[in-house]
Amino acid sequence: MSTTPLKGNAVIGQSGGPTAVINQSLVGVVEGLNASANFDGQIFGARHAVDGMMSGDFIDLTGWDQARLDRLAGTPSSGLGSSRHKPKQDDVRAMTRYFEEHGIRYFFYIGGNDSSDTCRIVSEVAQEDGYEMHSFHVPKTVDNDLVLNDHTPGWGSAAKFVAQAFMGDDLDNQALPGVKINVVMGRHAGFLTAASVLGRRPGSNDGPHLVYVPEADFDADKFVADVAKVYDRIGRCVVAVSEGIHDKDGTPMAAKLAEMQGHRVERDAHGNVQLSGSGALADFLAQAVKDYMGRRTRVRADTYGYLQRSFSGVVSDNDAAEARAAGRKAAELATQGVRSGSIAIQRVPGDNYRIEYNRIELSDVAAKTRHLPDEWIVNGNDISDKFVEYATPIVGDLPVVERIDGW
Amino acid sequence: MSTTPLKGNAVIGQSGGPTAVINQSLVGVVEGLNASANFDGQIFGARHAVDGMMSGDFIDLTGWDQARLDRLAGTPSSGLGSSRHKPKQDDVRAMTRYFEEHGIRYFFYIGGNDSSDTCRIVSEVAQEDGYEMHSFHVPKTVDNDLVLNDHTPGWGSAAKFVAQAFMGDDLDNQALPGVKINVVMGRHAGFLTAASVLGRRPGSNDGPHLVYVPEADFDADKFVADVAKVYDRIGRCVVAVSEGIHDKDGTPMAAKLAEMQGHRVERDAHGNVQLSGSGALADFLAQAVKDYMGRRTRVRADTYGYLQRSFSGVVSDNDAAEARAAGRKAAELATQGVRSGSIAIQRVPGDNYRIEYNRIELSDVAAKTRHLPDEWIVNGNDISDKFVEYATPIVGDLPVVERIDGW
Repeated sequence: MSTTPLKGNAVIGQSGGPTAVINQSLVGVVEGLNASANFDGQIFGARHAVDGMMSGDFIDLTGWDQARLDRLAGTPSSGLGSSRHKPKQDDVRAMTRYFEEHGIRYFFYIGGNDSSDTCRIVSEVAQEDGYEMHSFHVPKTVDNDLVLNDHTPGWGSAAKFVAQAFMGDDLDNQALPGVKINVVMGRHAGFLTAASVLGRRPGSNDGPHLVYVPEADFDADKFVADVAKVYDRIGRCVVAVSEGIHDKDGTPMAAKLAEMQGHRVERDAHGNVQLSGSGALADFLAQAVKDYMGRRTRVRADTYGYLQRSFSGVVSDNDAAEARAAGRKAAELATQGVRSGSIAIQRVPGDNYRIEYNRIELSDVAAKTRHLPDEWIVNGNDISDKFVEYATPIVGDLPVVERIDGW
Repeated sequence: MSTTPLKGNAVIGQSGGPTAVINQSLVGVVEGLNASANFDGQIFGARHAVDGMMSGDFIDLTGWDQARLDRLAGTPSSGLGSSRHKPKQDDVRAMTRYFEEHGIRYFFYIGGNDSSDTCRIVSEVAQEDGYEMHSFHVPKTVDNDLVLNDHTPGWGSAAKFVAQAFMGDDLDNQALPGVKINVVMGRHAGFLTAASVLGRRPGSNDGPHLVYVPEADFDADKFVADVAKVYDRIGRCVVAVSEGIHDKDGTPMAAKLAEMQGHRVERDAHGNVQLSGSGALADFLAQAVKDYMGRRTRVRADTYGYLQRSFSGVVSDNDAAEARAAGRKAAELATQGVRSGSIAIQRVPGDNYRIEYNRIELSDVAAKTRHLPDEWIVNGNDISDKFVEYATPIVGDLPVVERIDGW
């Protein structure tokens, strides 16, 4: 697997949805390259990921000083710009021409499972065409859905945002009681929505009182009955809902409800329904609760939307450090002569939280989706303490709150 | 005006929409009472503001230790619970009976302009009925719309949240370009929406590129043309919109659009249309842009909703300190024998930011609304640097971001 490292330059791309720490990984790769005795080339950033690679739109990142790198690392979203395009073989050949032109022998791609698949395709096509290159995928996704990883950079910070949002929102709902529904990102995996419970005191009446994730089929009739039951018991109800909830046939509720209301449904190139950037699902669920419980119940709904992934100023320290280290590890392995791979964040079994950055094959992670384990989902409408044990060291400390007794 | 301070107990209420620092004011009042040589009574918190006062639902806050008070002060939302009820004369008489029963001679009410009016009514009815009492209003509102105040506790922290949200969202939009519309709280005053510009570098292409506040009439045709113009120039557009925007006849766009789409419109006891807790306005505006610009433009909309006022973990230090000091000042004046008043936060003219806490008459602030000055609104779709000068010391430092050149 390991060979003599190639001489040449490097290109880095950031793909898919931005996160609060994806620039940490970018800077990690740059630092890893700068620190390697085997690498003395230039470092290019591709503007808008594969789009920049297919058009030769590169930014020179060589020689940035540490203070500037640190500031960039602490900046949310993808500093190089992102793309949702997935290149086909011909696109990769267009990219390879620019790689040759720029003497690029190191390819780093930071992204989720689609991006690891892109990295695999680039690596395979280059190999078929006899263009020698080191190709590495650095993990990133707020969905936390990469297989073979304990967790994924970006999720910890988004989870911290969601946990803090629910802490505040639950206190708000306690002050002005009613039903409050919050829709959280997550098309196929419920990890981010599950993070809504992290600020909840065990055994208390703290919200969220109900949590719905895409791993459990959603039934609108059961949903409104669940809400009414909590409301009848404690006089209020805070609900966390994944944007990706779907009925038992697998139809996303967002699409079903939008079509029921006569709206056009926007779909991407993969046929996926647009979920984020609209409040329609939250508003429909609120209306369903109002219809069931009667018009006098105070029902409100928020959609956390893009705030979750790119909010400036709410970051898990641990997530930031791991995102940086994963980037650095990719650069280390590549400059040691390893031809390709994906960096997996894996937890070392034991009482104390400790992780390792291990190389896995690109094909092992590419285009696969990890789900919330069944045993972490309680009755289809709550999240178990096992998830809290899992997530707490990743997300880190949450703000301390003091509640006046007797609620 | 100043007389011998009355002997007796105190009651504190928190009214209206919660904020991130309203518990600072609660703790400030408690600390001010504890520190006064003239006060040796019990301190009661009224659960859900006037609701608790009308039913004798009090919580004893006497003797809390400083560590617990500090934790409560740092907790967002209204720890005592809140209410949107505005008592009538008979309600005040119901309250006075409980005040007598509990030996209450000090009444503190933390809230916005409706709450200052409640405080005025309580004070006047008690006086008419010969029930001697000190009645003080402590300012609070994320809307920043109290007259005779330079600014209002709660706004600074909400403004910091909005500023940080737009910083992150603008970086997100730069990474994945398109049109992004964010709806911000503010029924009549645009101060919170204006805060969207605080993280924008002067003379740059940073967003928000367009800002719409309730102080300027909203024209949907001009709006979509404005958006298209920015998009044509820089390939993307981030927009901040107040929830309270209205057409030239004063009809809220939220109501107009909802009714156009055949939805029922929820109104409160004052006839106000429900604005928060729904994504409908944002979704309508996004649809209008799509219709105008063509379906291939990426258009997304988020509604910041309740996150803005009660988010746990994003607080302006200055706002927190001022909220606390305003509460303390009210307790000081009351225990010095001043019968009634509202604490106004007023800026001392000069180069350095310095404020004073001055007593004003309840009737001078009650039920009045302050607006964004006309000269801070540019072309009906942007906010001037004068606002930035005004707001920066209140909101405090924002996260440092580093952008890769050439955007």
